[in-house]
Amino acid sequence: MGKLFGIGVGPGDPELLTIKAKRIINEVDFLFCPVKREGSESFAFEIVSNYIENNQLEIIDLVFPMNYEEDELMKMWKKNGEIISGILSGNKTGAFITIGDPAVYSTFMYILPYVDSDSVEVEIIPGITSFCDVASKIKVPLMVAEESLAIVPIRKKNNEELSDAIVHNDNIVLMKPSNNPEEIIKMLKDKGLEKKFALISKVGTNEENIIDNIDELEKNKIPYLSTMIIKKDGMK
Amino acid sequence: MGKLFGIGVGPGDPELLTIKAKRIINEVDFLFCPVKREGSESFAFEIVSNYIENNQLEIIDLVFPMNYEEDELMKMWKKNGEIISGILSGNKTGAFITIGDPAVYSTFMYILPYVDSDSVEVEIIPGITSFCDVASKIKVPLMVAEESLAIVPIRKKNNEELSDAIVHNDNIVLMKPSNNPEEIIKMLKDKGLEKKFALISKVGTNEENIIDNIDELEKNKIPYLSTMIIKKDGMK
Repeated sequence: MGKLFGIGVGPGDPELLTIKAKRIINEVDFLFCPVKREGSESFAFEIVSNYIENNQLEIIDLVFPMNYEEDELMKMWKKNGEIISGILSGNKTGAFITIGDPAVYSTFMYILPYVDSDSVEVEIIPGITSFCDVASKIKVPLMVAEESLAIVPIRKKNNEELSDAIVHNDNIVLMKPSNNPEEIIKMLKDKGLEKKFALISKVGTNEENIIDNIDELEKNKIPYLSTMIIKKDGMK
Repeated sequence: MGKLFGIGVGPGDPELLTIKAKRIINEVDFLFCPVKREGSESFAFEIVSNYIENNQLEIIDLVFPMNYEEDELMKMWKKNGEIISGILSGNKTGAFITIGDPAVYSTFMYILPYVDSDSVEVEIIPGITSFCDVASKIKVPLMVAEESLAIVPIRKKNNEELSDAIVHNDNIVLMKPSNNPEEIIKMLKDKGLEKKFALISKVGTNEENIIDNIDELEKNKIPYLSTMIIKKDGMK
């Protein structure tokens, strides 16, 4: 049997890698790195690169293009699953690295059904999620006591989900808020939450920025790499 | 200025500590460990104990009793916040360790308002959450593509929240399901979710157990340390 580890490498700060992830990356034969296109850099690889001590480790890029048609994507997942199965079957070991946590919007979960379970065993190593990282930066809890949390991806259209999430939960994390800033601003105003949110952009980079003022939110473009936290009970 | 780190040490497996957490724990002067009562063992300390290499590190237990009245709890948070402020003010450094992630139902966030911000600076280091750990064990995603996730603590009474969460989200994590197994079983049946859940108990221990069959769920007592994941689209 081959063995494949699906490893979450955290949100970006290399030191947020777990001790387990570091150990396994240095024990396996192959490191599988997702890239957007042939030859482009892997952000997941950048995160772990300074911790690689194994000179024998063979690094293999796997292409996962963005914005494809669903059937094209499925072909790509299948192809990558088959590449991995082919390389690992027969007692080889490999680690597929993914940003954040493998269970939270990761590409790893898409290829899993296409990894041949007869010849490759799979183990998943959890990672630090982006929303926990963001909460740590602004020093607010995602939830305390008996509070609930909803994590909602923002779409370009149809944000009924967002409205429902705000009605039914104490705390809400909005993923990819740049997809529909107008709708979010409208919703914050309609529901009296103008002072009960924080938008954090480009966490952990030199351009890290926090906006918690509705006027400022209206004046500025929300960057692609942003997360919003809404706390109905207030931010402090 | 003193400095206090709030550190998430993950769900239980010591290797799920981050590299950053390990480094800071070995750099600070004081390690603050939450305990349920005077003299009892700290689970957070157990998790990190094998990684402590600093012989000078002074370990201080802080008592956080369970099941107290709210005003008793507040007194305890205030007292512990003041103890920490007293020890650290004047250039000392300390780390308060907490299971899982500091932003997810942790005691750390309760004491934070009582740490004197004029004399102690605070930095939070995120940790692996229990629900990410559980998802990694059963190898299912918490969410993919444009799916949402709700995390809902189960109460002894009044579980309208749970019903709402199931209606409005693709995926639902139930925290402390042992608080109201009857209600959960009824809800799974009412909503046709008998085959779309997994209950994971005592993750990472010798008694780790997974139940994904409704008959088995009805027959067995749900242990205290359990998490349930419901996926409306199915578990695979």
